[in-house]
Amino acid sequence: MKKIINNPESFVDETMAGIHYAYGDRITFLNGDNRILIKNTPTPEGKVGIVTAGGSGHLPVFLGYVGQGMIDGCAVGNVFASPSASKMASMIEACDYGSGVLCLYGNYGGDNLNFDMATEEVEFSDIKTATIRVKDDVASSPKESAGKRRGVAGMVYAFKIAGAAAENMLDLEGVTRVTEKALQNIRTMGVALTPCIVPEVGKPTFTIEEDQMEIGMGIHGEPGIHTGKLKTADEIVDIMMEIIMGDIELSEGDEVSIMVNGLGATPLEEQLICYRRIHEILDAKGISSYMPHIGEFATSMEMSGVSITLFKLDDELKELLSQPASTPFYTNHNK
Amino acid sequence: MKKIINNPESFVDETMAGIHYAYGDRITFLNGDNRILIKNTPTPEGKVGIVTAGGSGHLPVFLGYVGQGMIDGCAVGNVFASPSASKMASMIEACDYGSGVLCLYGNYGGDNLNFDMATEEVEFSDIKTATIRVKDDVASSPKESAGKRRGVAGMVYAFKIAGAAAENMLDLEGVTRVTEKALQNIRTMGVALTPCIVPEVGKPTFTIEEDQMEIGMGIHGEPGIHTGKLKTADEIVDIMMEIIMGDIELSEGDEVSIMVNGLGATPLEEQLICYRRIHEILDAKGISSYMPHIGEFATSMEMSGVSITLFKLDDELKELLSQPASTPFYTNHNK
Repeated sequence: MKKIINNPESFVDETMAGIHYAYGDRITFLNGDNRILIKNTPTPEGKVGIVTAGGSGHLPVFLGYVGQGMIDGCAVGNVFASPSASKMASMIEACDYGSGVLCLYGNYGGDNLNFDMATEEVEFSDIKTATIRVKDDVASSPKESAGKRRGVAGMVYAFKIAGAAAENMLDLEGVTRVTEKALQNIRTMGVALTPCIVPEVGKPTFTIEEDQMEIGMGIHGEPGIHTGKLKTADEIVDIMMEIIMGDIELSEGDEVSIMVNGLGATPLEEQLICYRRIHEILDAKGISSYMPHIGEFATSMEMSGVSITLFKLDDELKELLSQPASTPFYTNHNK
Repeated sequence: MKKIINNPESFVDETMAGIHYAYGDRITFLNGDNRILIKNTPTPEGKVGIVTAGGSGHLPVFLGYVGQGMIDGCAVGNVFASPSASKMASMIEACDYGSGVLCLYGNYGGDNLNFDMATEEVEFSDIKTATIRVKDDVASSPKESAGKRRGVAGMVYAFKIAGAAAENMLDLEGVTRVTEKALQNIRTMGVALTPCIVPEVGKPTFTIEEDQMEIGMGIHGEPGIHTGKLKTADEIVDIMMEIIMGDIELSEGDEVSIMVNGLGATPLEEQLICYRRIHEILDAKGISSYMPHIGEFATSMEMSGVSITLFKLDDELKELLSQPASTPFYTNHNK
């Protein structure tokens, strides 16, 4: 296990200490609990709170997006494990600025269960909540059962849209409506080349042979839809784009934002080579692109591979995507 | 070789096509030459131009920093190979806005030679230039021969300072002075856990055994100062910090910016664990930190490892570091 760590048991605590030391001027632990991070900058009374939660091991998801213009709070669990319902409830209470809280998170069993309990719990404190489960991974279930899909990198676009809508002082119904619209327009698919290692386990929890790749693999190593010999970048992109574009209606004149997300160990050069192919495929169909997101947005520690996310824009979504944001790992400035 | 590429020969061209498609609204190829990238946004007449150049394979270095508040132009060669003097000369000419151009690049033989020829060549066009070679890697030569040191991740801080000084309309002497002062205050050291693969070679150009690490290795795989069994994160940081702090004077009350740079395949979690230890070491000595830089700033494709850079600040440097910048891979906003 070639990791730069101290011991597996302290992996999450020490990561959180790093976050705290580095960005403590704008994010803080709620009541000193190092598994609940909230924004530390002024928030207007009446703004809808946006919160998320999930397991560790996916940075910058989720913590890296706590900040101005994105999310207000985040609870994290151990690596690939949901935080508890009570931590989620404390976070929701801390992020209620008087107009309710949107719980926006990936569609995973543990997170669903715990958030359901947490939102019930805060009802007793008269906090209004809404829930959106992100289900952008087209490989995780066929279109007929899209409700079972997992949430992956497209979640970052959802944080951006919800955060911007909340900054614009939309009410909880308004923020929820536009975030749901965004997610109807977001599709992701990934390919993995190498596995990742959960520190406490100490060895890969699955294997991918030396000359193989797995298309559609989840960010915790959930099985994909095709395992086969490693293909070229263009062939891989073509396979993924065909599936994504079969799942969402896109036609000439449409505009999308393209996210190419490295899963942890894939060089930026390779991500750009993939971006190039995606751009060419869309361009040939008369589909233009806006505000690319290329880099590591949602990872699986040292997993090698990429995911592609398409986000179809309309005027409202484009405006919200363009609004400034400033968080430890997502900053946009003038576009 | 597990890379998401098409063929090794087109690696750089296709990476550049990706850059062009993604960020063509603000950066452009000079005269259609896909190895020379210049800023495409309005530049005030009389601003000092800041340019760099070097081999490919280190993204976001160098291309990712072309933009407002950092560098104006960048020429790139093949993987780990310098671009030609004539391309550098064309770039310098394009980035002269009437007040001369600072050539700011890493201290490597090919780049030095070609930039020397290029700056001689542009003299015939009456373009004034200044040259600064970045030599921040303390492991690459002892202090007595610090002039032989290589330039690594500290270069990014130098781009930021030079770019901000130029935006403030300092003249060429002024920009050069403050950038040299910054570099006197910058030290870097790295550790590698796994090698990288030059696409055209197709196999690692060096090896690091399964349980080994190499401290002080360069970003092209230049030999380090210590090869040994992989240690814990804290032990690794302690070794590197002792060497860095033996090379630069730091005392109680000083303020630094800390960069923890992933070399390509190291998870952000591990970078934060290292940041935590660096912060604690400095904090114990009464040294405070400002504006952390944690992420991938200067890489070696899929190399696993991290580098630590300390940048000692004074009021002038802190102000310049804080100024806004907006480039494809470096954006800061409000601090």
